[in-house]
Amino acid sequence: MSIKENKLQLYNSLSRKKEVFEPIKGPHVGMYVCGPTVYGDAHLGHARPGIAFDLIFRYLKHLDYKVRYVRNITDVGHLENDADHGEDKIAKKARLEQLEPMEIAQYFSDRYIDNMDALNVLRPSIQPRASGHIIEQMEMVSKILDAGFAYEAKGSIYFDVVKYNKKHNYGKLSGRNIEDVLENTRDLDGQEDKRESVDFAIWKNASPEHIMRWNSPWGSGFPGWHMECSAMSTKYLGEQFDIHGGGLDLRFPHHESEIAQSVAANGSEPVKYWMHNNMVTIDGQKMGKSLGNFITLDEFFTGSHKLLAQAYEPMTIRFFILQAHYRSTVDFSNEALQASQKGYEKLMNAVETLDKLKASDTNDFDVAQWNRKCYSAMDDDFNSPILIAHLFDAVKIINSVKDGKLKINTENLELLKTAFNSFTFEILGLRKDEKSQSGGELSAKLIDIMLKIRHEAKLNKDWATADQIRNQLTDLGVQIKDTKEGAEWQL
Amino acid sequence: MSIKENKLQLYNSLSRKKEVFEPIKGPHVGMYVCGPTVYGDAHLGHARPGIAFDLIFRYLKHLDYKVRYVRNITDVGHLENDADHGEDKIAKKARLEQLEPMEIAQYFSDRYIDNMDALNVLRPSIQPRASGHIIEQMEMVSKILDAGFAYEAKGSIYFDVVKYNKKHNYGKLSGRNIEDVLENTRDLDGQEDKRESVDFAIWKNASPEHIMRWNSPWGSGFPGWHMECSAMSTKYLGEQFDIHGGGLDLRFPHHESEIAQSVAANGSEPVKYWMHNNMVTIDGQKMGKSLGNFITLDEFFTGSHKLLAQAYEPMTIRFFILQAHYRSTVDFSNEALQASQKGYEKLMNAVETLDKLKASDTNDFDVAQWNRKCYSAMDDDFNSPILIAHLFDAVKIINSVKDGKLKINTENLELLKTAFNSFTFEILGLRKDEKSQSGGELSAKLIDIMLKIRHEAKLNKDWATADQIRNQLTDLGVQIKDTKEGAEWQL
Repeated sequence: MSIKENKLQLYNSLSRKKEVFEPIKGPHVGMYVCGPTVYGDAHLGHARPGIAFDLIFRYLKHLDYKVRYVRNITDVGHLENDADHGEDKIAKKARLEQLEPMEIAQYFSDRYIDNMDALNVLRPSIQPRASGHIIEQMEMVSKILDAGFAYEAKGSIYFDVVKYNKKHNYGKLSGRNIEDVLENTRDLDGQEDKRESVDFAIWKNASPEHIMRWNSPWGSGFPGWHMECSAMSTKYLGEQFDIHGGGLDLRFPHHESEIAQSVAANGSEPVKYWMHNNMVTIDGQKMGKSLGNFITLDEFFTGSHKLLAQAYEPMTIRFFILQAHYRSTVDFSNEALQASQKGYEKLMNAVETLDKLKASDTNDFDVAQWNRKCYSAMDDDFNSPILIAHLFDAVKIINSVKDGKLKINTENLELLKTAFNSFTFEILGLRKDEKSQSGGELSAKLIDIMLKIRHEAKLNKDWATADQIRNQLTDLGVQIKDTKEGAEWQL
Repeated sequence: MSIKENKLQLYNSLSRKKEVFEPIKGPHVGMYVCGPTVYGDAHLGHARPGIAFDLIFRYLKHLDYKVRYVRNITDVGHLENDADHGEDKIAKKARLEQLEPMEIAQYFSDRYIDNMDALNVLRPSIQPRASGHIIEQMEMVSKILDAGFAYEAKGSIYFDVVKYNKKHNYGKLSGRNIEDVLENTRDLDGQEDKRESVDFAIWKNASPEHIMRWNSPWGSGFPGWHMECSAMSTKYLGEQFDIHGGGLDLRFPHHESEIAQSVAANGSEPVKYWMHNNMVTIDGQKMGKSLGNFITLDEFFTGSHKLLAQAYEPMTIRFFILQAHYRSTVDFSNEALQASQKGYEKLMNAVETLDKLKASDTNDFDVAQWNRKCYSAMDDDFNSPILIAHLFDAVKIINSVKDGKLKINTENLELLKTAFNSFTFEILGLRKDEKSQSGGELSAKLIDIMLKIRHEAKLNKDWATADQIRNQLTDLGVQIKDTKEGAEWQL
């Protein structure tokens, strides 16, 4: 029997069921995930899709798929709100004195990538910027116009949802019925250029105070928000690709509109598997920038937010997110984070213990079976909490072997070392945090020397020195445990 | 008298002399520097402009200028050579299986930024990608065509250097006389669509195997290399801005052509101060990718190149580059790098010594005068080697004060601490490298405890323990020096 019993299954938001994963052109896999809008610092809500799709990226690579992972950076369109507030005054000034939206986008995009690096999120294969793909978006707008699914009004181009829905199904992903929606809302929200409330802009005419603008066949403007993902996924992954991911809040209207745009422009369904991560909540409400109830990742790392009882290491945050399945909500609380911190430390200690375990001639633990259970968890729609439960089962075994209560033979020990490390580091993407570690090689050596001096002091019945060393190490957070083989320590 | 006697002067490549720096719209400064072509790892030659213009960026900011620093990423045009080799085979395959140039560009762009981070090069305000500004480049091509300084030939657009030179001066930056050039070279290098050998493409018709291409009014193609810098500097800094920098090898034809493009399109000189860093040489030859004689920065950091006697810390590389004036060549050798490493360590040790110095009632060193000399060095076209010489003068003073041979009073000591740290860290951009440091706070505390135990062992005449501690610390590279005030240590 192979190490894996099952085939990978994933939940497809489009069919609303789990499906066996069969890429269009295996072993190649194309995956597109909606990235951040870079006009503010990333918060815990942004860490969620970052980590969820990093887990998926890592597992697919572990299974030897050749993954091209594209995650976009939205640096146009969504910036308009910022520019609306008083920017017209600044725009009158000389070019260099004026706010340059790209400077803001660069700053927050750099910070976002730094945050993801801290969370050990692997960098995607391509991180395209929306502002860098205006031509591709204009070309797609033209195609949709040519196909008859859009209309022009005062320099803007709107997608004709009603007409599209007569031929195709607008609402198939989100499960909405557009006719019902239309019956209930005839209000155009002041956007009187649109024919129907459900229509959406795929190109917007730029008002005079709008800084980010490009010349187009329809006048000076900028692309509608949904357009960038359709254009960039087509450019880098083709008209049909395997996985499209993003937060559940993007399913409608963003992803629904992406499907409509691609079908209208290219005549084919763009995505085989739609995947959505659930939200991070705080007091039961979605954490989001627009709601103002967010805690930034930097605030977590430094502990500088009134709701935080302490600072949390990036790996605590990562482990906290992974302890929930990506399709469940995650509710923020200090208690839950502190429990995650303990769990993470327990796992890291087990890694160190495992490294020192000695094999016996007899064997009490079937590692191959355990290994298959770990794969089964991941094969069941990337179920990281179940995988983590299996890892903690192994932690119990590891500690029992260390305490001499259980035995493990060479073959099983080698497999356990390989598999335990592979699931912990390569697949879950955890990393030994510096602070949870010995504080560096030099510190470890210094502590070893001090314990040696303490040992000799004890042999010489110099209890004062021995106690002094123990007390001072304890003050520095070094815990000493005397065993038959000598003193052991951990931070 | 103020802390600064002089005004900042910089060498303008255009006038070939030093000029007082007067920004067009002070206190705002616009600076554009030619960044890397991202199709390979960065080598020592790339570190040079990165560090040279980082020094300039840092010093301008120190002088309270509000600098918008734009450094581009060339991810199109220069990639064509890679695509020419055998790519037609791959292009036949499905989209996802095919080489995606943007994946290569993303990979090497990420690595370049990581390398610059390691060298403590501050991130520019904007890092625009050439591929993200095709519209702006097409619009500039159109303007040049409209102005009559370009012509179309078989889907490509060429800049008409001969016509331009009749009205303006093509060659003013590089000092070349185009009529002489034309008399000597009538050969068109097989590019028979061009009218004259000196003409250059501002838009290129894409051959069938070319992957990176965009639709334009002149057919499917891509911009000529010189065009990106003209279009992006205009977009982010305006039609006239303060500083344009880059390597000396870019002065002709790249920067010469940028001037011609901007004058042709906008009718005005684009740049007030042109600045060029000199080359890194190896065996007297320019280190460059095309010459194949380069050592990558990662190879320096790991020591994994046959010409390297050891690994070099990023700060050693930075200090090595800064020890030469940016307009002088820097010749690679292990001896020179090892000397830089020692110099850097000496400087870092002085920082620690300075921190512990005690003030006296009398004073033997005029810090204000020394401080003015440091500013004068920087004001003289950013003369970092002279600044470093002044810092080493201060190191001598610092060590003399420590040894009790010289005295310094409170006022001078405070100024020395502020100025020495400011020039070392803020302006030269050096950073305490981890390996040159105590190995972390924990190690420092452990060593302090061990010295305390050793001190008590000596008081108890337990010479064995005292010697043991000293010997074991020495083995770990911790040097102990007994002084009247107790033991001191350094790594």
